Amino acid sequence: MKENPYDNDKFFAKYSQMPRSVQGLEGAGEWETLQSLLPDFKGKRLLDLGCGYGWHCAYAMEHGAFSAAGVDISHRMLEVAQEKTKQWDQVKYYCCAMEDISFPAESFDIALSSLAFHYVENFSPLIHKIYSVLKPGGTLIFSVEHPVFTASGSQDWYYDSEGKILHFPVDNYYYEGKRSAVFLGESITKYHRTLTTYLNTVLTAGFTLQNIVEPQPPAHMMDIPGMKDEMRRPMMLIVKCIKAAE
Amino acid sequence: MKENPYDNDKFFAKYSQMPRSVQGLEGAGEWETLQSLLPDFKGKRLLDLGCGYGWHCAYAMEHGAFSAAGVDISHRMLEVAQEKTKQWDQVKYYCCAMEDISFPAESFDIALSSLAFHYVENFSPLIHKIYSVLKPGGTLIFSVEHPVFTASGSQDWYYDSEGKILHFPVDNYYYEGKRSAVFLGESITKYHRTLTTYLNTVLTAGFTLQNIVEPQPPAHMMDIPGMKDEMRRPMMLIVKCIKAAE
Repeated sequence: MKENPYDNDKFFAKYSQMPRSVQGLEGAGEWETLQSLLPDFKGKRLLDLGCGYGWHCAYAMEHGAFSAAGVDISHRMLEVAQEKTKQWDQVKYYCCAMEDISFPAESFDIALSSLAFHYVENFSPLIHKIYSVLKPGGTLIFSVEHPVFTASGSQDWYYDSEGKILHFPVDNYYYEGKRSAVFLGESITKYHRTLTTYLNTVLTAGFTLQNIVEPQPPAHMMDIPGMKDEMRRPMMLIVKCIKAAE
Repeated sequence: MKENPYDNDKFFAKYSQMPRSVQGLEGAGEWETLQSLLPDFKGKRLLDLGCGYGWHCAYAMEHGAFSAAGVDISHRMLEVAQEKTKQWDQVKYYCCAMEDISFPAESFDIALSSLAFHYVENFSPLIHKIYSVLKPGGTLIFSVEHPVFTASGSQDWYYDSEGKILHFPVDNYYYEGKRSAVFLGESITKYHRTLTTYLNTVLTAGFTLQNIVEPQPPAHMMDIPGMKDEMRRPMMLIVKCIKAAE
């Protein structure tokens, strides 16, 4: 995430028009699933990695969190986030790459990351760092683009000559690393990892897996153009895991 | 697995010529990975679901297992298995669908199933049954065809007009259920399930996930025709999980 497209004017203008930017959590297709897996925030210290507009920090505070620390590399996103959560003194933002965070060990009860880890080149050191800043018994919950979605790179359907979707292409699955996809008209670098790597990295760091869910589009969004096609491929993956209590 | 192609003459003749039938475990591309995840068999009671030719029962006995119970719906496969393991009195075979097993609770230390669960229509009752016949602290380890591989149904690559592989197609991912694939020239019924269903079914039954691995073709098999293409899609999934000790 060190190259940061979110501070590019054109990209930022388009991103800020997306349903998830305008409507917030309710505008995100995966929110219903993510919400159902969230731990109780009451009295808890949250670390939000790739916090963007601060929607999850605000949600945590509204649900009784003691504090929220939002980390994002985009200062433009953080300006919006700051404004959104200004009524809470206990919300703080840090403008840096999430790989570069340095908090004391056992500072947080919950670490959350929404659709940001696929921008990170070196996953394992990040997960080890998160493990260390979580208290014993703490929760890490994250969503990423699904390995099926990131494997081939283009992130586009495969079409017939009339422009009708035939299927979604998977390729180069076991070749992990950099992919270039076009998102909102801008070329953007993401990192493909296999499911094996995502899950075994958290297991190796010491976490216990509690849930692994590929969110489906919710019934009430099925009328949005293109949404029904999302039943044909998994686009996202949500992982919830726990640091052992002492 | 109640319709059983393995007792069909033509299919059986072809299956018995496959590398994994002739060479046994060493002929199976996923064996190296599966083997590395196997628990210690010494003194243990093994249940092998979909045991086929009995290769895994034999392996367990060679590695000090106390006993092995092999379950398969194909009596022709079991005849071969019986012959292969006749030197061990403590190996017993049961000719039935694995969904229909009835062993006393806590009869086994290890339940293993190699590439058979994708023939089972109702996964959750099977997993609950396995949980009950395992002793506390027991291990379930299974391989299945990967949800990416079973989703669209044909299980074939997508080719260009000159017959060159373009990619592997994923479709209808969230529509679980029956698929018809052609395997060894015969039409065969399999059941597609999402990764979410595989993993959350074992979690819901009470298991703790220990490993989730998508086996890659081993380096020493890369010269086998077609094997290098297996780096382009995940074909199998191995899951290892533990029943809580009391």
